[in-house]
Amino acid sequence: MSQANINDNEVDIVIGALHSDLTSFMNDWSPFFLRFHLIIVKDPDLKEDLKIPEGFNLDVYTKSDIERVVGSATSVLFTGYSCRYFGYLISRKKYIVCVDDDCVPAKDNMGNLVDAVAQHVMNLKTPATPFFFNTLYDPFRKGADFVRGYPFSLRSGVDCALSCGLWLNLADLDAPTQALKPGQRNSRYVDAVLTVPARTMMPISGINIAFDRAAVGPALIPALRLAGEGKLRWETAEDIWCGMCVKVICDHLGLGVKTGLPYVWRAERGNAIESLKKEWDGVKLMEDIVPFFQSLRFPQSATTAEDCVLEIAKTVKDQLGKANPMFSRAADAMQDWVKLWKTVGSA
Amino acid sequence: MSQANINDNEVDIVIGALHSDLTSFMNDWSPFFLRFHLIIVKDPDLKEDLKIPEGFNLDVYTKSDIERVVGSATSVLFTGYSCRYFGYLISRKKYIVCVDDDCVPAKDNMGNLVDAVAQHVMNLKTPATPFFFNTLYDPFRKGADFVRGYPFSLRSGVDCALSCGLWLNLADLDAPTQALKPGQRNSRYVDAVLTVPARTMMPISGINIAFDRAAVGPALIPALRLAGEGKLRWETAEDIWCGMCVKVICDHLGLGVKTGLPYVWRAERGNAIESLKKEWDGVKLMEDIVPFFQSLRFPQSATTAEDCVLEIAKTVKDQLGKANPMFSRAADAMQDWVKLWKTVGSA
Repeated sequence: MSQANINDNEVDIVIGALHSDLTSFMNDWSPFFLRFHLIIVKDPDLKEDLKIPEGFNLDVYTKSDIERVVGSATSVLFTGYSCRYFGYLISRKKYIVCVDDDCVPAKDNMGNLVDAVAQHVMNLKTPATPFFFNTLYDPFRKGADFVRGYPFSLRSGVDCALSCGLWLNLADLDAPTQALKPGQRNSRYVDAVLTVPARTMMPISGINIAFDRAAVGPALIPALRLAGEGKLRWETAEDIWCGMCVKVICDHLGLGVKTGLPYVWRAERGNAIESLKKEWDGVKLMEDIVPFFQSLRFPQSATTAEDCVLEIAKTVKDQLGKANPMFSRAADAMQDWVKLWKTVGSA
Repeated sequence: MSQANINDNEVDIVIGALHSDLTSFMNDWSPFFLRFHLIIVKDPDLKEDLKIPEGFNLDVYTKSDIERVVGSATSVLFTGYSCRYFGYLISRKKYIVCVDDDCVPAKDNMGNLVDAVAQHVMNLKTPATPFFFNTLYDPFRKGADFVRGYPFSLRSGVDCALSCGLWLNLADLDAPTQALKPGQRNSRYVDAVLTVPARTMMPISGINIAFDRAAVGPALIPALRLAGEGKLRWETAEDIWCGMCVKVICDHLGLGVKTGLPYVWRAERGNAIESLKKEWDGVKLMEDIVPFFQSLRFPQSATTAEDCVLEIAKTVKDQLGKANPMFSRAADAMQDWVKLWKTVGSA
């Protein structure tokens, strides 16, 4: 898709600022960010003032802005990586693109810088095919098509609601894996986009994603907060939880989720061995979370993302609440989030 | 996986000869075929003698061999692309690798010839992960791993029973698509292998596949024969049908199916427009076939591939037989195939 096909007014780029100096981050992304509106949300825990180069069309939100808009009567917290969700809430655009502030544009196999925004929007604007697998990957990509045997009745596909990009250099591994293989770097650029099939669960990373805010915005929630949550991705599980929510909701509503391109280049930081103790909590939780979401079914009366989020929250309380108080808190946050979305998000 | 890790005695390469002169085909593949035993099955409709270069370790089977072994009291037919299934039947090896005789080795993105045999065997010998999707593709590949959030309890995976390779140059499109886009060629080498998730259906192409004969051999059956079946891939649906059978059986037995690498280079031949009338039949059938297989469930008593094939045959007769007599004939062939497998295949 050429840049000309993207309407600037359809896209907000949301950046959660966990680092105060965004100069090189913004400069590296400027070829692809300059024409869009940016929402930068500063981690409320970050003390230093933000350094942002001039020339961008952006709004910055800080702790006081968040408190003013959200108030205190909510269990939804916007600290650490969760600060970006405030940007999802206050955006009014159809599409959100979101990249962690320690990622810069990657290069493809030809050495060209990857326009992650254009690729994400292309993923969202072309149909997804969750009900039958196409062995030649995304059939809507230039030069590709549906293979022999693909039912014609399924070729029009469905709307795509979520686009999950990948990472070169430092992959999104958990702390135990990273600690076990400290020298491992991801150098394989796989030139493919594919629809994740319906009813297939996956660990969605928040590092490099885009979504249709109008369709599934209310489902992207900072709900699951680990006891030892920190400021490194492998010390969090908030995006994994919210990814499971979005995927089951997309399956129920007949929407698609794509994964693959675009890649971003992820800088190295943090010591996995020191994080191991914190992460272990998140790793253990997945053993409960995955079967829960795999068996989750929605009533027919749930016809919107908001309905589905409330259904999940109720079922989490019933089925997971006893296993770990973190789950009950997640359910509370989901219920409060839907209230926030109704008052703030869809104002 | 280095070639050293493959035991020559574990692999049979099965070639269905639809062309009499296999000289250039065999010479092109010799770097990868020479160390293995080959089973070449001549299409019974082919009149000319086969031309095969010397130096290979192979057995050739012709119409008279097939008649001698199989007899006449069966509805299983081995003409056209279905001749290769005779090779599956008489092999005694653990793994079968099978490539159409109009394909030659492809080159990867670095310009190296692809060893399709080694890649297929590697796919089959490393675990598959059908119960949760890994966004970094095959976690068992060098340099790859499971991503953050992947449950540790699912990381050991399951045995892989089927490996589906892809095609450069002429992709495996259906006749309508090929006729509509006569100049379209697949030039994208996607450097990835992935497990097709459990309960996800796909159109498996027989052009370039490998499988664990001990695990699912009885499920690869020349069952569905189109009324106008011809000698071009887009005039057949036998592999698509058998792929649907293998996939549902793998799902039931807890086995995995992988797709992606290896690629083969597929030569151009045939006129799609002339084939359109024949293919349309296969295209229409998929509208019945896909929902049938998507809703198919096996009883717990079905614990082997043979059991499952007989279950499918019974259900096909009940549910699809009335829609088209082709389906009843397919069910007959499946029942006869299991008898053949018991007497000839597992002798």
